[in-house]
Amino acid sequence: MCLFSQLVFAQSADSIMIKRIVDETMTNGTAYKNLRKLCKDVGPRLSGSPQYTKAVKLVSAMFTEMGVDTVYLQHCMVPHWVRGEKEKGNIILKSGKKFDLKLCALGNSVGTGVNGITGDVIEVNSMAQLNKLGTAVKGKIVFFNFPMNQTNIKTFKSYGESGVSRTRGPSVAGKYGAKGAIVRSLAINLNDYPHTGTTVYNDSFPKIPAVAISTNDAEYLSKQIKLGNVSKAYFKTSCKMLPDAPGFNVIGEIRGSQFPEEIITVGGHLDSWDLGEGANDDGSGVVQSMEVLRTLKALGLKPKRTIRAVGFANEENGGRGGDKYLEIAKLKNEKHIFALESDAGGFTPRGFSLDMKETQRNKIMQWKDLFYPYGASDIIAGGSGSDISPLKDIGTALAGFTPDSQRYFDIHHAATDVFENVSERELKLGAAVMAALVWLVSEYGL
Amino acid sequence: MCLFSQLVFAQSADSIMIKRIVDETMTNGTAYKNLRKLCKDVGPRLSGSPQYTKAVKLVSAMFTEMGVDTVYLQHCMVPHWVRGEKEKGNIILKSGKKFDLKLCALGNSVGTGVNGITGDVIEVNSMAQLNKLGTAVKGKIVFFNFPMNQTNIKTFKSYGESGVSRTRGPSVAGKYGAKGAIVRSLAINLNDYPHTGTTVYNDSFPKIPAVAISTNDAEYLSKQIKLGNVSKAYFKTSCKMLPDAPGFNVIGEIRGSQFPEEIITVGGHLDSWDLGEGANDDGSGVVQSMEVLRTLKALGLKPKRTIRAVGFANEENGGRGGDKYLEIAKLKNEKHIFALESDAGGFTPRGFSLDMKETQRNKIMQWKDLFYPYGASDIIAGGSGSDISPLKDIGTALAGFTPDSQRYFDIHHAATDVFENVSERELKLGAAVMAALVWLVSEYGL
Repeated sequence: MCLFSQLVFAQSADSIMIKRIVDETMTNGTAYKNLRKLCKDVGPRLSGSPQYTKAVKLVSAMFTEMGVDTVYLQHCMVPHWVRGEKEKGNIILKSGKKFDLKLCALGNSVGTGVNGITGDVIEVNSMAQLNKLGTAVKGKIVFFNFPMNQTNIKTFKSYGESGVSRTRGPSVAGKYGAKGAIVRSLAINLNDYPHTGTTVYNDSFPKIPAVAISTNDAEYLSKQIKLGNVSKAYFKTSCKMLPDAPGFNVIGEIRGSQFPEEIITVGGHLDSWDLGEGANDDGSGVVQSMEVLRTLKALGLKPKRTIRAVGFANEENGGRGGDKYLEIAKLKNEKHIFALESDAGGFTPRGFSLDMKETQRNKIMQWKDLFYPYGASDIIAGGSGSDISPLKDIGTALAGFTPDSQRYFDIHHAATDVFENVSERELKLGAAVMAALVWLVSEYGL
Repeated sequence: MCLFSQLVFAQSADSIMIKRIVDETMTNGTAYKNLRKLCKDVGPRLSGSPQYTKAVKLVSAMFTEMGVDTVYLQHCMVPHWVRGEKEKGNIILKSGKKFDLKLCALGNSVGTGVNGITGDVIEVNSMAQLNKLGTAVKGKIVFFNFPMNQTNIKTFKSYGESGVSRTRGPSVAGKYGAKGAIVRSLAINLNDYPHTGTTVYNDSFPKIPAVAISTNDAEYLSKQIKLGNVSKAYFKTSCKMLPDAPGFNVIGEIRGSQFPEEIITVGGHLDSWDLGEGANDDGSGVVQSMEVLRTLKALGLKPKRTIRAVGFANEENGGRGGDKYLEIAKLKNEKHIFALESDAGGFTPRGFSLDMKETQRNKIMQWKDLFYPYGASDIIAGGSGSDISPLKDIGTALAGFTPDSQRYFDIHHAATDVFENVSERELKLGAAVMAALVWLVSEYGL
């Protein structure tokens, strides 16, 4: 009975504290303002680009302005891929007519050379189908048409299912002798924008050029193929991989008042694809992570444990930032008790996904009701985020912030991932519940 | 034990049926396509306008195309307010400079006459403050500056709190002899669009012209007042109320197979404000309600009870459609067991708000887990919707569909309430969970 009363009292005190945190973030939060700067003053910031360096300076200055205890960088070498000239491509119909494609090179793809490539087109709808065709695709352009499944309510599931067409498809097509790959964009709606993203070459196979086309164009191409109207396809890209370039994780830190050696990380990735402004992917995650520190500072709270907000380098096409973060953690023998990543867009919160020991998970799940008033009580077991996942190696309890996923794959990796497609209240509310979770872990440990 | 097994079995069968319903809506649903037509082929459709009549024809045709059992109209007379010429207004600073205001007349407001009105400006931040000032506002223009509270997570709460500035403010200012009212838009973010909406005159008080200004302009005006820089304000409107005009509720019906006399209503309002396209308010609710019927038809389901989808007339500035619906229900002695309204935007679902007897509420709450996979399990006691609320008079159990509310008051009643600000998946998912709830009530009654 006494224990129960204590629990009720603690929950009530926590609930009051969380309300203070949320009120501060919603009323005075700078996440939206900071995101505007990141999107409009810097814009796209692919690893190795001059804009990435500009973003590092901007975020460092923002941390400094917030008055956090320490601001520093972690240097790492990152892949340096460049898109080159604006891509071109079309479908040549048997009638002789050409249909221009809205397309872009896939990240990390090799280019076509100055003459581009032209070839017969063969459509595949699954990797099994490609493997069955095997060398029948030799000399041809493989069109990967893997529409995202509309019936998965969590759209990341559909992304996972169709994603192989982009990540591994072109390399497997290369293995069978294809000369190029056209991939239906991993967009969940029908739109006119090509969505880029990394393709991964298996070094044992020939590397063939790969492009994404818009979902509307994919529908058109598939239809024309079915009607037997397609003669050839053509595309030209001048993208290439340059030697590795310097990159940086940007870190702002508030030192813990009681257990400074116990580190809590909250982060997103600072690099972004080059077509849009990296607003939802993942400017949102970076400014939300910064906001966690700002909110705690603004309320005059002294967290018991050390809290670090991290803008990771190179999530999009290499993951070197996350790797470096682990490397340094190991080198310094740091004790990382918890890490939270926001890399699913700045949308309205739903909850958190927990990748940790059951006992730790149960502890966080006891806090569910505290998150209910903010729409973030869907706290379940699952993955976390690719930048923090290396920390699993040293036993860190990991979590991913889970915003609503319905709109993410309309704009993901496309020219439409811009500041205007982020809602101020949704972004701030996400930051607020992240701050609340970080605060609870900082108070009670795991 | 046996009862428990039966319950588990029923829940499992229901869960399979709901998955079928949701899959159908997400895959083949026409809500988004229909909303595009309503927004782009018809556009704004204020009660009494020719566009409203056009919308009635379009929705009737859509019902017919769906092959529902009956399509019919309910005639009612509606207020017919017209905006007139584009409004003008400015702040005249003591320096002599003029600052143009982004403004619009409030719905149902009287106009200023051809010369407009010019007067000293006095800012109030609460009704209490206005009442305290009393006749001190005589001959002046009252500036109602009631910013929406950012700390309410459910934004409708903030709308309710600040809303009095628009609904009753101008009339009370008129009572004290003010010559005009400038109202800060009921927008939750800072933007450049005036948000209209009804103002309600108390017939015992002088009716004074009332306009809304954008939240950015409200911030500016308030600041200039504080600095003592404001000399006068001026605005000119030519809006007026014409004699009542014909209006219609549009109804599509599937007759129940077992209990046809038990009626379930699902609806939204077909009229909209004139500045945007009435996309979220409330084209969404109308196309979602239609989609409930389409989905059940497409799956070949025969609901036990009669299901009616209704596009209500005149929610925005009179509520005559809902009144007429009750009147006819009484006249025909109809048995209305349940009504569900969607009038909070086409955003991602959160759940439902139930306004009914506790026993009925408990029955629906038992279905919570069935809605969890679709993000719609936040099922709580609360209000329903203004078009169905008259049905309370005949004891109908009422419910409101509750989408996420973070973005609604960015665009509500403004020129930005357009089709482009609706997400296809969010809209469809809302329709899907509405169809699921309607189906359950149709199967099990209340």
